[in-house]
Amino acid sequence: MTALTSFATAPLSITKLNSTDADFHARLSTLLAFEASEDEAIDKAVAQILFNVKTHGDSAVLAATQRFDRLNVTSVAALEISQQEMQQALDGLTPEQRTALETAAQRVRAYHQIQKQECGSAGFSYTEADGTVLGQKVTPLDKVGMYVPGGKAAYPSSVLMNAIPAKVAGVAEVIMVVPTPDGVKNQLVLAAAKVAGVDRIFTIGGAQAVGALAYGTQTIPAVDKIVGPGNAYVAAAKRRVFGTVGIDMIAGPSEILVLCDGTTNPDWVAMDLFSQAEHDELAQSILLCPDAAYIAEVEASINRLIDTMPRHQIIRTSLTNRGALILVRDMDEACAIANSIAAEHLEISAQQPEHWAEKIRHAGAIFLGQFSSEALGDYCAGPNHVLPTSRTARFSSPLGVYDFQKRSSMINVSHAGAQTLGKVAATLAYGEGLQAHARSAELRLSK
Amino acid sequence: MTALTSFATAPLSITKLNSTDADFHARLSTLLAFEASEDEAIDKAVAQILFNVKTHGDSAVLAATQRFDRLNVTSVAALEISQQEMQQALDGLTPEQRTALETAAQRVRAYHQIQKQECGSAGFSYTEADGTVLGQKVTPLDKVGMYVPGGKAAYPSSVLMNAIPAKVAGVAEVIMVVPTPDGVKNQLVLAAAKVAGVDRIFTIGGAQAVGALAYGTQTIPAVDKIVGPGNAYVAAAKRRVFGTVGIDMIAGPSEILVLCDGTTNPDWVAMDLFSQAEHDELAQSILLCPDAAYIAEVEASINRLIDTMPRHQIIRTSLTNRGALILVRDMDEACAIANSIAAEHLEISAQQPEHWAEKIRHAGAIFLGQFSSEALGDYCAGPNHVLPTSRTARFSSPLGVYDFQKRSSMINVSHAGAQTLGKVAATLAYGEGLQAHARSAELRLSK
Repeated sequence: MTALTSFATAPLSITKLNSTDADFHARLSTLLAFEASEDEAIDKAVAQILFNVKTHGDSAVLAATQRFDRLNVTSVAALEISQQEMQQALDGLTPEQRTALETAAQRVRAYHQIQKQECGSAGFSYTEADGTVLGQKVTPLDKVGMYVPGGKAAYPSSVLMNAIPAKVAGVAEVIMVVPTPDGVKNQLVLAAAKVAGVDRIFTIGGAQAVGALAYGTQTIPAVDKIVGPGNAYVAAAKRRVFGTVGIDMIAGPSEILVLCDGTTNPDWVAMDLFSQAEHDELAQSILLCPDAAYIAEVEASINRLIDTMPRHQIIRTSLTNRGALILVRDMDEACAIANSIAAEHLEISAQQPEHWAEKIRHAGAIFLGQFSSEALGDYCAGPNHVLPTSRTARFSSPLGVYDFQKRSSMINVSHAGAQTLGKVAATLAYGEGLQAHARSAELRLSK
Repeated sequence: MTALTSFATAPLSITKLNSTDADFHARLSTLLAFEASEDEAIDKAVAQILFNVKTHGDSAVLAATQRFDRLNVTSVAALEISQQEMQQALDGLTPEQRTALETAAQRVRAYHQIQKQECGSAGFSYTEADGTVLGQKVTPLDKVGMYVPGGKAAYPSSVLMNAIPAKVAGVAEVIMVVPTPDGVKNQLVLAAAKVAGVDRIFTIGGAQAVGALAYGTQTIPAVDKIVGPGNAYVAAAKRRVFGTVGIDMIAGPSEILVLCDGTTNPDWVAMDLFSQAEHDELAQSILLCPDAAYIAEVEASINRLIDTMPRHQIIRTSLTNRGALILVRDMDEACAIANSIAAEHLEISAQQPEHWAEKIRHAGAIFLGQFSSEALGDYCAGPNHVLPTSRTARFSSPLGVYDFQKRSSMINVSHAGAQTLGKVAATLAYGEGLQAHARSAELRLSK
């Protein structure tokens, strides 16, 4: 009994690094290293399920759903949830929950509407002196599939974050799939779907749901892109159908990097580190700070607060195995390290956060100032919470309206334009040994 | 001898379809179906090469290059091509080739500069009533790797099309890799690299080049994204390093869809179909037209012109196996079919092409009017020639400046904002069972 108590309240053993140590960069690299394990057995099972769905359509989806989710239905049509049922779920929320959900949706929609205006959605067109017109047309995707996990990881906020940008982009049909093992439906998820404007919902999941959306079945329409998080089976299935449809990123564990000048209440920083660590045991929470005394205060806060958290076991494992408190020379060095980490979430918990933000080149979302806790961004600040993980912020972006649009080049060459461009094209085409290209350009030359 | 001659001039057997036929959609689907074959032996070999490069760096790259390209060098540094050598290649071109290359580069640069202005590169920021500031920051990638195939498929135009948008986006370092088997260098490719502003070139290729760029070696810097076409080994390597770095699309065979109202010179249309077919035996050239007599004229042009083409054997195979001449009810139906095909290149060879272009939702590039031959777009019209193939234009876009930029959300919540947003976030977080998220928001509430 005594032993147990002392174990539960033992100080957390969190990695401490100092940027002046000779082996600092090597140790940081080791800490950051994360390889998504690819399970061959899962991949094989997924390949078989996808093949079945592609070949047999509805009957394969039905069989898999009966088997994995233990649903006793006789048609895929019976797995569809009506708009009326979504509305009932929304009507059944407490007034506080409903207001929170609608406020979050309204703010996410407002942000993405501005993003749409600002990301070049109108396309462009310009006319050259000889009458040649060049430009780009931007159009929404026709149909998008959205995967929503069932069970404990069912997050209504993810429904908002995935569906709203698609609808703002102008996607005609957003088709959601969500597994309901043993028929258990998450009312918050259904309510969020209604608020987000989801067009259709099927209670299917796993690789069979991904296959149904990618290939289409007699009942489920084929979509153009599949977004949304899922387990290892879903991730493997998304990888395999990529090309037939578009997919969003396959996300790694969530990460927070707090860059603090030592002026924020240490309890706040400790709780921000917890808020990432509580997601899952592989999540990563790191603090960068130039003030050793402040780091000690944050560590004291961590040890004082951790046992008050219902998910303390997950937090403890995550912080112990993957977390770190890092003493840096100064905030400039902190910014440089932050660029090398390219975190999913970066909090600049400091005075004059804009000053430091200017030095940041790589991060999924940047939270400026002590009041911008990452949790606000997860739910209701407005920007998307689907963000690049595992250093992919070096080359990729938050989910946005642009992920539900695509561009087409527009080329209208005038008669005069064909004379000048034709000669250039023919010269280059002959240089590449592509004579039909050259002749195609030359035929348009006036004699 | 007689038999041979008659074989060479035998009319081409090209598929003819009629949209009023009962089995039209099934036959069209069969014609369009293309599955990229994935060769397990290639994938295994690639996995081994990537592992070697990741583990041993330079020495693995050197060994593979000695073995596959038969280059007798003792260091990776000796495989680098200097800026001076690139300049010499440019200086060595004929004046006509040099002018063509520089004109093309200038036009591609001009188009992408306008694209940069118009695609939201400035980011955005807005302030809410309570002082909360939301926005998005847009930054270029730091380093980009560009793969350029060696040998017969070495296209200087691809060097321009891949490197110029990266430089326009602001990428600090574009690192090109190009295999030079037996030490044979393509002077047009080196000249194009100089004109495009490529920063460094290494004469390495295959999976070892992709691995070197993805992981970095002692001599070759690790990049953030790898673009450019390659053979099956390169494609397999790109798939495998995706996640560690970004990649562009893995392209399928090239396609052209000509939508013609029967007013264009049939020889021109025939040559446009050839210009795609000559790329490779799997390329696909399709004509959609409501005028049966005109289709017969195009077919006559094809048969008259084909033997004048140096690449007639490739053209013949491509048109026979994958081409089609399709009679449609009218131009409206042609547009609907074009949307279902979602072609890489779509020529609207018709009067009032803008009218029909308005009905097109899915295509990589749209060429309007009889003077806009696809070949002009391949070389020098200005828009990019790296385009989505195999129906992926339903969800993806031409290569552009946006592929070399990424976005970061910016969230600066005011003290007042934290009060309202904090309550919303806490309510939703408790609903999802994420109490540390809720507490992190609640700690910012004033007592």
